[in-house]
Amino acid sequence: MAMKKLLNKPEDIASELLSGLVKSHSDLIKMVDNDLLVRKMPKLEGKVPIVFGQGIGHEPAFDGMIGYGMHDVEVPGNIFSCAGGDRIYAGIKYAWELSGKTPVLLIISNHEGDVINANIALEMAEDDDIDVKSVLLYDDIASAPKGEEENRRGMAGMIFGFKAAGAMAELGYDRDEIIAKVEKINATTRTLSVAVSPATIPTSGQVLFNLKEDEIIIGPGVHGEAGPEGPMKLSTANEIIEIVADRVVEDGEFQSGDEVLVLLNGNGATTLMELFIMYNHLEDLLKDKGLKAFKPLIGNYVTVQEMAGFSLSMCKADENTKQFWTAKTVTPYFKVFGS
Amino acid sequence: MAMKKLLNKPEDIASELLSGLVKSHSDLIKMVDNDLLVRKMPKLEGKVPIVFGQGIGHEPAFDGMIGYGMHDVEVPGNIFSCAGGDRIYAGIKYAWELSGKTPVLLIISNHEGDVINANIALEMAEDDDIDVKSVLLYDDIASAPKGEEENRRGMAGMIFGFKAAGAMAELGYDRDEIIAKVEKINATTRTLSVAVSPATIPTSGQVLFNLKEDEIIIGPGVHGEAGPEGPMKLSTANEIIEIVADRVVEDGEFQSGDEVLVLLNGNGATTLMELFIMYNHLEDLLKDKGLKAFKPLIGNYVTVQEMAGFSLSMCKADENTKQFWTAKTVTPYFKVFGS
Repeated sequence: MAMKKLLNKPEDIASELLSGLVKSHSDLIKMVDNDLLVRKMPKLEGKVPIVFGQGIGHEPAFDGMIGYGMHDVEVPGNIFSCAGGDRIYAGIKYAWELSGKTPVLLIISNHEGDVINANIALEMAEDDDIDVKSVLLYDDIASAPKGEEENRRGMAGMIFGFKAAGAMAELGYDRDEIIAKVEKINATTRTLSVAVSPATIPTSGQVLFNLKEDEIIIGPGVHGEAGPEGPMKLSTANEIIEIVADRVVEDGEFQSGDEVLVLLNGNGATTLMELFIMYNHLEDLLKDKGLKAFKPLIGNYVTVQEMAGFSLSMCKADENTKQFWTAKTVTPYFKVFGS
Repeated sequence: MAMKKLLNKPEDIASELLSGLVKSHSDLIKMVDNDLLVRKMPKLEGKVPIVFGQGIGHEPAFDGMIGYGMHDVEVPGNIFSCAGGDRIYAGIKYAWELSGKTPVLLIISNHEGDVINANIALEMAEDDDIDVKSVLLYDDIASAPKGEEENRRGMAGMIFGFKAAGAMAELGYDRDEIIAKVEKINATTRTLSVAVSPATIPTSGQVLFNLKEDEIIIGPGVHGEAGPEGPMKLSTANEIIEIVADRVVEDGEFQSGDEVLVLLNGNGATTLMELFIMYNHLEDLLKDKGLKAFKPLIGNYVTVQEMAGFSLSMCKADENTKQFWTAKTVTPYFKVFGS
């Protein structure tokens, strides 16, 4: 299937996308030198600035989540590819200087390119005596077995960590406290994705994978990386969410009595209608396991272009985690709970 | 192309969809007798309650837009079909009684079934001495020529009227003031939609229309009603948004110097990436015409299942309109501007 999208020249996709995002939210974000996306109104000096670098093409993640209570500096790469180490370094330096030399937190999504470039940036910052530490996020249970969690990919569940980090920074926690909490949240975060139809790389039109009309894939990555098991037959919404929920709960060792954060994320072309239909059953499944969903988030947050499908993310929610989850955010696209 | 969706039984789609919406936002909305969706925390007595009835399947419109600053009572129909007159009447009666017999406003989207059923409901209410008046919204320039605006369909641009009505009601305006303002906004609201790929009716799997790989349709309706012109060739994002913007601006007689509200709405499977790329050019086009976009809204608000494409809506924005547009809302899915 050829790509059928509303685009101009492939080589302009990244710049036009970011320019359109900034133009349409010029009250909240701006672009500064070296194509860094930053908050229009910076965080107060002395509060930990948060830097994140990632490929684009997953909108609204994560270029649409800059602002009060989330990221301060976003270093956009190209479509599906991370920014280079020198640009991530530039993002760290910008945050360091703007914040009056407040210790900087760099968040890294666990993908090979992201980690390599983040390490280059961290070395450059060290050479310049910039005080920056990083925290690595990973949550995709399909990408490495239990016991090898640190080899898992960063997926939609990273939002739990982002949200806590952003909230804690606004509240004035210091960097080590933020890192400790985010690592604790990450340790209980689990995500599993399902692809119902494939996506294309917009710059090339290349289809990421093929799927028969009666097949789905459990466990694809956010760039269409194949799942570990190959295709399975499409069945009902209830059966599929049950498979996914069972695996997430088992891998995460969620226990009866736990309160959990739940993100039911649309991968792109799946309707909110379908997500609601699955959530309708998911809540019952969780109840049967003695789990209570706290302020679930349902919608398209981390997308893979026009891929149909979804991912389920969960993490354990203690009182602090719940407080940070519902703390105020002012960003173009991160949902504000009841405010 | 067969339908490939995450569903259970076709006959359960509507009830499961609404149940999932309510379960996932139980802090904001609830379902009461006769399957009415209502605010969890009702509006203060004496403030005009707003009732709306519509088909579902366009999520997050409009079942996801109930709450402070938007609708009070939503009467969901079935997929793509309006609720019956008796159920809309039940919604009006609920609002009337809950509000301490405050004059009720019924908003009607201009589609044949919606109007017929609304009229039945209004007659039933009159028989019961319930004080209700209605306002009719229409904005789709593809569905009737200039000069016959009252024959046009209600599309995504209705959100401008909804938002003003909801904000004014919270601020304590009386019903006639609200109707006058909403009618004034509606008179300057124009929408034009583009379909890039077809959608299916989820209950039957029936494809709404077919499109070749190099074709798009200008002017389809929200249930896949064909545009007036038949298919045209797919071209670049910039060319397509230019065609659409030119027609909207010409039909709406927007003048150099006008400030405008702008909604660039995704129809379903179109990525935010594409919407940003189009907005990037749209803002330049509007500037060339001397028009200034105030707090543009970009995202999937009124969808047509998995249809790819978008709609552009605009209305003139005076000071009041701008105030109401950015007024506080607390709903599951209506965007909160910078708060």
